[in-house]
Amino acid sequence: MNIQRYQELISAELDVFANSLPKSPDNLYEPIRYTLTLGGKRMRPLLTVMGAGLFTDEPGPSLPAAIGIELFHNFTLLHDDIMDNAPLRRGKATVFAKWNSNIAILSGDALYTEAFRQVAKSPAAVLPQVLDIFTQTALEVCEGQQMDMDFESRSDVSIAEYIRMIELKTAVLLAGAMEIGALCGGADRAEAHKLYEFGRRVGIAFQLQDDILDVYGDPDKFGKQVGGDIVSNKKTYLLLTALSRANGYHKENLLNWLQSDVNDAEAKVNAVKEIYDAFEVRKAAEAEMHNQFSLGIQALESIKADPSKIAMIKSVAESLMVRQH
Amino acid sequence: MNIQRYQELISAELDVFANSLPKSPDNLYEPIRYTLTLGGKRMRPLLTVMGAGLFTDEPGPSLPAAIGIELFHNFTLLHDDIMDNAPLRRGKATVFAKWNSNIAILSGDALYTEAFRQVAKSPAAVLPQVLDIFTQTALEVCEGQQMDMDFESRSDVSIAEYIRMIELKTAVLLAGAMEIGALCGGADRAEAHKLYEFGRRVGIAFQLQDDILDVYGDPDKFGKQVGGDIVSNKKTYLLLTALSRANGYHKENLLNWLQSDVNDAEAKVNAVKEIYDAFEVRKAAEAEMHNQFSLGIQALESIKADPSKIAMIKSVAESLMVRQH
Repeated sequence: MNIQRYQELISAELDVFANSLPKSPDNLYEPIRYTLTLGGKRMRPLLTVMGAGLFTDEPGPSLPAAIGIELFHNFTLLHDDIMDNAPLRRGKATVFAKWNSNIAILSGDALYTEAFRQVAKSPAAVLPQVLDIFTQTALEVCEGQQMDMDFESRSDVSIAEYIRMIELKTAVLLAGAMEIGALCGGADRAEAHKLYEFGRRVGIAFQLQDDILDVYGDPDKFGKQVGGDIVSNKKTYLLLTALSRANGYHKENLLNWLQSDVNDAEAKVNAVKEIYDAFEVRKAAEAEMHNQFSLGIQALESIKADPSKIAMIKSVAESLMVRQH
Repeated sequence: MNIQRYQELISAELDVFANSLPKSPDNLYEPIRYTLTLGGKRMRPLLTVMGAGLFTDEPGPSLPAAIGIELFHNFTLLHDDIMDNAPLRRGKATVFAKWNSNIAILSGDALYTEAFRQVAKSPAAVLPQVLDIFTQTALEVCEGQQMDMDFESRSDVSIAEYIRMIELKTAVLLAGAMEIGALCGGADRAEAHKLYEFGRRVGIAFQLQDDILDVYGDPDKFGKQVGGDIVSNKKTYLLLTALSRANGYHKENLLNWLQSDVNDAEAKVNAVKEIYDAFEVRKAAEAEMHNQFSLGIQALESIKADPSKIAMIKSVAESLMVRQH
């Protein structure tokens, strides 16, 4: 089965889900329907059915978990937007902004419940393992979000802590999506766990890529303002590397840009980029990204399954790695 | 096994859970530990193990679900306190007040995840049914909370809608707790469902009792300020009955008290109580409460199980019905 067919299946299942939601109370379910219309690449459910597809030609048993994981991801965005006070997501008003904080909290809780309900429809034979991975992953995503919030007010974040944070906040869900798919597809635990490792490593690589693109990406293709992370002092891999490498005048200069109120955002972005260049920060981030990605591909290629299916997953991962250059 | 032994088991399991929580991130897990120290009667997990106890002498298999349901209940309180802007719960600072809204949202999400994880440890043979009841119940609790918030700004709430709201917000969780316990204890679905009906009916009765006690309870025993619902214009069974029965001068008088800013809370409570008395509102609420309670006991007594165990559950329910008079 090819990727387009998988994507059609997922899209159809998400429509079935959205259409089956109750009408009332409107303030509980309308924000959920709205959230699902905001779109997204539906990458996580694709990973789940592709993970299953490595071990079976019948993606059906992995579909509820795939939908559940996509719903969970949307739930995390819904609550994150409250915590970040974010007015927009994908160019449209967030639930928090369109309704209010209370409605965003409660409809998020309901969406999380629906996510769990879908995952619970996984095949009975693997249900306990699937739930174990799902709940562990969900908890780690919460831990990653908390670490991210804690980092905002800390000045001593290490690069290792940063990698751990993006692993928890972003990568483990890609990893869990694949491992759960594999188990639903009949994989044994050892093979399924190799897919987890693949998802975890490429997930870290994707986030490092996002950090790099925020500074060095083509704004037309990237769709965001270049240097947004620099403007907001976000502690990315790049900034933490610069802070660890810079010294003397450069360090003082960098700290000055971080600590002072800046009116001229472009000047700040350019100045910080100059410091990044001076300490070859981009090269360090790219090296770490490629290293993580290679370790992921290595895990993928060690799986005992049809080589053409492994190649398909590898090509999807590779296409995501260069998607915004 | 007697009730005290059940309570000790639950208390010990909750301690095990709290002690097994990770230490870090502190801002994620400390609010959960704190929430669990706030106490509570632990009524829901007791219902779960008593439900199991009707069908088995071995409460072990129902304990994870019992703990999960108690964690879920605590999660709903944690998020409700944000939505209600509540500074205190059981005389202590809420998580929302002690930390902040973001930490309360996220630690609530983590606590909900832990609740799922516990429920997911239920016996594999009944796991799909248990999860089905748990997620359906959780969704209904969200619906009830949304209805309750919607009611605040509505002036046309019917008594039937109110009963439905308290059923969803409060009663279905007692019902689900018992049904899940029964299934974990080996009950067939029909018998388990009778326990659901028992829990649902007595849950509605308990909430009606709370409405009545808020106005007519002994403040020393009740532990809350008498008339709090009247002061805050809460649309309780009593107020909705008074609004439906009063007319002419009395109706106008009642609406005046509801619509005007009142400085003298005691005067308002006394005036509204007089209207309640004039229309025998307390009698109506007590009749509805006794009716619901009797229907619940009827469902309980129709269960095919050891009569002495049924009598034990009945006596627990009865003791809760008069606990604050």
